[in-house]
Amino acid sequence: MALSVEGHTQVEAQLRAAKAAARLLAPLPRAVKDQALHAMGEAIWADRAAILAANQTDLERAHAQGETKARMDRLMLDERRLHQVIQGLEQVAALPDPVGQVEAAWTRPNGLHIEKVRVPFGVIAIIYESRPNVTVDAAALALKTGNAVVLRGGKEAQSSNAALTAAMRRGLQAAGVPEDALQFVAVPDRAVVDVLIRAKGWVDLAIPRGGAGLIQHVVEHAVVPVIETGVGNCHVYVDAQADLDMAVEIVVNAKVQRPSVCNAAETLLVHRDVAPAFLPRVGQALTARGVELRACTETYTLLQGVVPADLLQRAEELDWSTEYLDLIMAVKVVGSLDEAIQHINHYGSQHSEAIVTADTQAAARFFSSIDAAAVYHNASTRFTDGFEFGFGAEMGISTQKLHARGPMGLPELTTYQYRVRGTGQVRS
Amino acid sequence: MALSVEGHTQVEAQLRAAKAAARLLAPLPRAVKDQALHAMGEAIWADRAAILAANQTDLERAHAQGETKARMDRLMLDERRLHQVIQGLEQVAALPDPVGQVEAAWTRPNGLHIEKVRVPFGVIAIIYESRPNVTVDAAALALKTGNAVVLRGGKEAQSSNAALTAAMRRGLQAAGVPEDALQFVAVPDRAVVDVLIRAKGWVDLAIPRGGAGLIQHVVEHAVVPVIETGVGNCHVYVDAQADLDMAVEIVVNAKVQRPSVCNAAETLLVHRDVAPAFLPRVGQALTARGVELRACTETYTLLQGVVPADLLQRAEELDWSTEYLDLIMAVKVVGSLDEAIQHINHYGSQHSEAIVTADTQAAARFFSSIDAAAVYHNASTRFTDGFEFGFGAEMGISTQKLHARGPMGLPELTTYQYRVRGTGQVRS
Repeated sequence: MALSVEGHTQVEAQLRAAKAAARLLAPLPRAVKDQALHAMGEAIWADRAAILAANQTDLERAHAQGETKARMDRLMLDERRLHQVIQGLEQVAALPDPVGQVEAAWTRPNGLHIEKVRVPFGVIAIIYESRPNVTVDAAALALKTGNAVVLRGGKEAQSSNAALTAAMRRGLQAAGVPEDALQFVAVPDRAVVDVLIRAKGWVDLAIPRGGAGLIQHVVEHAVVPVIETGVGNCHVYVDAQADLDMAVEIVVNAKVQRPSVCNAAETLLVHRDVAPAFLPRVGQALTARGVELRACTETYTLLQGVVPADLLQRAEELDWSTEYLDLIMAVKVVGSLDEAIQHINHYGSQHSEAIVTADTQAAARFFSSIDAAAVYHNASTRFTDGFEFGFGAEMGISTQKLHARGPMGLPELTTYQYRVRGTGQVRS
Repeated sequence: MALSVEGHTQVEAQLRAAKAAARLLAPLPRAVKDQALHAMGEAIWADRAAILAANQTDLERAHAQGETKARMDRLMLDERRLHQVIQGLEQVAALPDPVGQVEAAWTRPNGLHIEKVRVPFGVIAIIYESRPNVTVDAAALALKTGNAVVLRGGKEAQSSNAALTAAMRRGLQAAGVPEDALQFVAVPDRAVVDVLIRAKGWVDLAIPRGGAGLIQHVVEHAVVPVIETGVGNCHVYVDAQADLDMAVEIVVNAKVQRPSVCNAAETLLVHRDVAPAFLPRVGQALTARGVELRACTETYTLLQGVVPADLLQRAEELDWSTEYLDLIMAVKVVGSLDEAIQHINHYGSQHSEAIVTADTQAAARFFSSIDAAAVYHNASTRFTDGFEFGFGAEMGISTQKLHARGPMGLPELTTYQYRVRGTGQVRS
């Protein structure tokens, strides 16, 4: 699927402009960037009539296309939501700037002094499908870290995103920051994504944020470096030594509190020793909240007649690897901690995994054996989040191991440079 | 270019074995890994007759194929070189183990205690073209950091690599470490590379080490995360305020000391103010060492009649972007520091860039404006090297910005995991 020549030319011009702006952005002091973030917020507020009108266009098109209420709500902007978006900009301004931080410094025996210093990536491309507030969020985090940013949002929010970006560019200009540091790719063609992720030398980092299909497409076709985000097949394992009251609370929270997100739990593993005592309790608690259970044979036997029949299904092989993002939970009895670890390492997506146990040795083995971005002992998987971790910001949750793992805050949007000072040293 | 079914099956079996071994390797304490490194060295020494015989096979094939003396020498092993290789293993054993290091730890207001801990990647695939000692080097660095490693060496060293790997696997076994943690892919088909770099879920990181062709192929076709290494179009910029004696020494060292490596300089930029005084001196020094100069018009005029005519050519556009890896240097006069920065950012490969100047403000601008892994003030670009930086090891020099930049030591072969301890916390 190739992009039209015209579309190609436009995207290339935007990448060129972004790269030139990135060079100017990199050495900017924190104060200038923070001022720009405030100015962006002011410009959004000043432009609110145009932004809300653009949003109305998106909403009407979505309505005409028969979108669900939930999706319409995610798309919708109003003055209250714009206020939140602007507050978000101010919060990012208040965060420390990682750029320029000296991570390490040492002097070699030959007198060379070496510093490892945080620097921006350059141009970051963000490809997303979600709500228009991501447009402002992503722009703020990239600019705060001295990066130019090329945004490619979902077509359902096209008008809203264009209006928000236009306002933010005016804000940048008002603050004396090159407005070309913020590019919104409006070319209405899906092939734009492929141009961005293959623009080696122009895009220093691509971050896809969205569903599994988008992520997979980007990882499969990208030539530029990518940070994968988002897919989470998370487990809670209730060990033989678990406090069962605590376990019920954690399992229910991990599944029910917000089932549509990547750090929600999808599978419950229960040690055989506590299964008869625990499964009926947690089964009732989950089904009372509308959760459908996909049960292994042992679980099915223990829960038959205990929970509503319409919420109890037999699990199939596919259930162990499915990210439901819904009020559905797979449930399996395991014979040991090792079996739980093997199951998680086999079926998990290396996102967030929890053990509930009073046995600290079991927890230590779980921590050192589970291959995931975040592991939890006696806490809900739902805490894998930049704000919950105290980062004050989040660009997404990385599920890869290269560069960034788990919640990405500001430092993860930077790279480093070695700065070496000498007095004429040469190598012999 | 697809791999035969048989070859595919064999590579898949090796990846499966490596992944299983990686799970066992990850929690191993440092002492066990160090013991294994020593045992690998002992096994190589015990097997030296078989290894040198295998090397003889490679040398004879290379000779029959009319390989150059330089390439034959790179391929050749003898007892002295095996000794060096074994010393290398012992040096890696003596280095600190990054695995398990707590990079940060903090407690959230809700009582959750979060630790950011260094952990292995899992399975690292290393695809290389170089000398057989890379086989031992790469295996040592991967195993020290708790990673299983899949090695794919060049076919010219096939027999030597197989013999070295067989010995090292015996060493692992003797130390009680799963020998499957070290896989050597012997399938004689180039398509193996594509299987490795597309083995998502099996290979956690691929590192290509070799010429520009190999690197580009891997970056273009990989689906697994990659660290790019090696291509260096490095510059030395001699500023208006340079100490010209120092500048001659640095330029000559950066170009001549080992021209075939990525951190050697390829282009010399000279500020117009010092060009008449500096260019004849450096031109004579370089040509006296056999360096051919590719000169811009101004340089050509200044050097005509000063250096041997056969070593002075007019530069063409392509010269500014060429990594000669040879006794050739492009030379250009620039009007300002800014012009030098623009030239480097346009034509450079983001590897190593040097400024020679007594003006610390100029050096500071150079540092904050040049987009490269390493920037130097008054020192040769040749210092971009894991050993010269004091890392005690080097897996290659990254020219990308994601994860690792510049020389990669042991910490760069690890990722991290968040370990969260609670007392029943759930998210509200």
